Amino acid sequence: MEVNWTRKDLLSLYDLTPEEIVLILDTAEEFKKVSERNLKKVPALRGKTVVNFFVEPSTRTRVSFELAEQRLSADIINMTASSSSLQKGETLLDTVRNIEALQADLIVMRHSCAGAQNFIAKNISSGVINAGDGAHGHPTQALLDLFTIRQKKGRIAGLNVSIVGDILHSRVARSDIWGLIKLGANVTLAGPSTLVPRDFEQIGARVCHNLKDAMVGADVINLLRIQHERQRAGFFPSTNEYARFFGLNKENARYLKPDAMIMHPGPINRDVELDSALADGPQSVILEQVTNGLAVRMAVLFLVAGCLKK
Amino acid sequence: MEVNWTRKDLLSLYDLTPEEIVLILDTAEEFKKVSERNLKKVPALRGKTVVNFFVEPSTRTRVSFELAEQRLSADIINMTASSSSLQKGETLLDTVRNIEALQADLIVMRHSCAGAQNFIAKNISSGVINAGDGAHGHPTQALLDLFTIRQKKGRIAGLNVSIVGDILHSRVARSDIWGLIKLGANVTLAGPSTLVPRDFEQIGARVCHNLKDAMVGADVINLLRIQHERQRAGFFPSTNEYARFFGLNKENARYLKPDAMIMHPGPINRDVELDSALADGPQSVILEQVTNGLAVRMAVLFLVAGCLKK
Amino acid sequence: MEVNWTRKDLLSLYDLTPEEIVLILDTAEEFKKVSERNLKKVPALRGKTVVNFFVEPSTRTRVSFELAEQRLSADIINMTASSSSLQKGETLLDTVRNIEALQADLIVMRHSCAGAQNFIAKNISSGVINAGDGAHGHPTQALLDLFTIRQKKGRIAGLNVSIVGDILHSRVARSDIWGLIKLGANVTLAGPSTLVPRDFEQIGARVCHNLKDAMVGADVINLLRIQHERQRAGFFPSTNEYARFFGLNKENARYLKPDAMIMHPGPINRDVELDSALADGPQSVILEQVTNGLAVRMAVLFLVAGCLKK
Repeated sequence: MEVNWTRKDLLSLYDLTPEEIVLILDTAEEFKKVSERNLKKVPALRGKTVVNFFVEPSTRTRVSFELAEQRLSADIINMTASSSSLQKGETLLDTVRNIEALQADLIVMRHSCAGAQNFIAKNISSGVINAGDGAHGHPTQALLDLFTIRQKKGRIAGLNVSIVGDILHSRVARSDIWGLIKLGANVTLAGPSTLVPRDFEQIGARVCHNLKDAMVGADVINLLRIQHERQRAGFFPSTNEYARFFGLNKENARYLKPDAMIMHPGPINRDVELDSALADGPQSVILEQVTNGLAVRMAVLFLVAGCLKK
Repeated sequence: MEVNWTRKDLLSLYDLTPEEIVLILDTAEEFKKVSERNLKKVPALRGKTVVNFFVEPSTRTRVSFELAEQRLSADIINMTASSSSLQKGETLLDTVRNIEALQADLIVMRHSCAGAQNFIAKNISSGVINAGDGAHGHPTQALLDLFTIRQKKGRIAGLNVSIVGDILHSRVARSDIWGLIKLGANVTLAGPSTLVPRDFEQIGARVCHNLKDAMVGADVINLLRIQHERQRAGFFPSTNEYARFFGLNKENARYLKPDAMIMHPGPINRDVELDSALADGPQSVILEQVTNGLAVRMAVLFLVAGCLKK
Repeated sequence: MEVNWTRKDLLSLYDLTPEEIVLILDTAEEFKKVSERNLKKVPALRGKTVVNFFVEPSTRTRVSFELAEQRLSADIINMTASSSSLQKGETLLDTVRNIEALQADLIVMRHSCAGAQNFIAKNISSGVINAGDGAHGHPTQALLDLFTIRQKKGRIAGLNVSIVGDILHSRVARSDIWGLIKLGANVTLAGPSTLVPRDFEQIGARVCHNLKDAMVGADVINLLRIQHERQRAGFFPSTNEYARFFGLNKENARYLKPDAMIMHPGPINRDVELDSALADGPQSVILEQVTNGLAVRMAVLFLVAGCLKK
């Protein structure tokens, strides 16, 4: 069955059909080859303007998008909250309507409020790509995770994928869960009960509060980053305590299948959620995730740009 | 009569002849079409280097210039005061001579001191475009206002144009006044007497301290932004007080002609100088001003670049 | 004898043979012509990605590199320490491995720790160009100094070159010394004894603590910048005191040969280390150094990029 991309925005994996997700992954396969060439560039977005509007700061995602845009030959404008008129009291919608009035084709946007991009996308004709909205979603991160799993394991359906850490506050986890379930994986979530509430069982994930349960039988284990900077409210006693109970280390690694794949969205807190040697070991695909992120973002930019009116 | 552009700098509308202003507007008409195309790019400045040197911060103007430069295919360097050697005690002239020594073709410059760009332009061979100098001038903003009026009303000569707000501290107002008077419009300035001194009558504008007087008979009304961040000295009692006496709202809007055009340089303080519904209503051309700014800046960059030695 | 460039990194002039240094200078001669053309651009690095990673802030060097990269048609990403995951506790090596995973071809890096770039270069396959590491080295600054001397004087071997100022903390001085000695110049170092220790005699330089001794017979005099911002420890009593004893001024300039060339790495503290009129006078080549820096950096980027695997 031929699938066509018909969305001017990429807001959430929750909105997409499995076929649409697979179309992005297939398109990314093609773009991955571009980054492996000597001349890492195609003219697909030449003469198009992409505005990277990061109301919440970011480096890894911003740089990955910016490189993806350059390799598609787009014109690029970078805006941050501090460099926008938001600081002068302009409403978010006015700021974005101004960007639209400059005939920006695409806006790649990160915002600390869940749903900000949905609101914006409804109100402007430019395409909107969600680069992270609060704790809600981070669809391109989930897509690069799906891409990496599919490339390494040959499939996603039927795999046992465990996600460990602060699921409650993680937009990465939320997007991963939606994507994995849509493509037929069995998802297990593990972490302290304060951070992994039972509610997630309602969307089809298995919840456990014990690392070993998440490791045994897993084809893939994805360790989330403990975000010290968000850890105001004391959801766990200390980083040491977290590492002891939910950190993957050389000792408890024996519960993993020999071919289990270790993932991490980065940046790593070495020896907190993940032992340093394991992060650099043969089971780790962490740097491949970074490489694949570029290909996936090129695919998303390309597909979305193809659905714009002009 | 054929007019040729012969200036390596754009410093002030005060310096220009009416014919030169019209040449910029006519050139901008051509460039406006570029931004409406699928491939929003021409090679006019390919291989030229433009340095955006914003000693005073800016987003809207900086982004508009940067996009204009990209659509002309220029190479672009962005410098701010904090990212320049000014912080290490280098003189402004030395900083700019260094930019010139890097063979920058054009310097787009914003500075908090009136006349800074004039001083620089005299001392270097690179072209200098004034993106705002203190309270003195902001010529490309005035040009985009003229462009928008001419496009909507079909002419500028003979029109009644009212500018409302803090005229005293507004470089936008100063440049608008010069441009409008040169092209034959009748200019009325309105605002509290602390912000609209009678001196402006000497350059040919009508001064009034009553919003209604500025509205009756106006073809165009331009509401300036109340700049809270510059409002240190208490030129008016409060924002509420200002809004009551000089804000355009649904009630007093009945004094406007039905086809009067509402302009604002942005960012808007909604419901302070301008009622929110009017800002989004059919008389408002605020977002078109933004769109036209891009075309006008492409025209200025193109004309000025054509006058450089090499 | 044909010399080939075989290094994927440029870390220090200390590592290079005289032939390799001359190859860079010869290549820079060719690239200097590019910046003098109307179309200041060649496609040499088209489709290559260069990341400017400035963990220590910089403007002059960063802008010079960025322009060099633009004129070679590279794709460019700018990263600073504050915009990197270093702030989230990521190790430097992890940050750089992430840049490598994005298939960056070249990383231009400044860091406050001497040797940081050497460590990184050994651990990644991307090329690394040192844009300043602590007090250790700043090879492209030294190369532009060598280029400027050779172009003005026709040769380097046998010339008497004096470097005046804070030699102890200056990476510029250290790189200059290595380069000059390798190409056969006679190097004299002058400054307060706290800032010019006798140890430098061991690497073949003459050390003196008297400005006149450094001026008499010099073909080239290079005045280093007094870095107020680094002057915490009180190596000299005051800036005035320094200027009186080691500043080049109209009075002591009579000790210079009439054709002695005055250099300064910028930004100048006018009337501290160098009299303002002399800085702008016929013996000064300070702005030519800036112009040549661009050509030298294009040459380095070009040569290093030619040695990458893919």
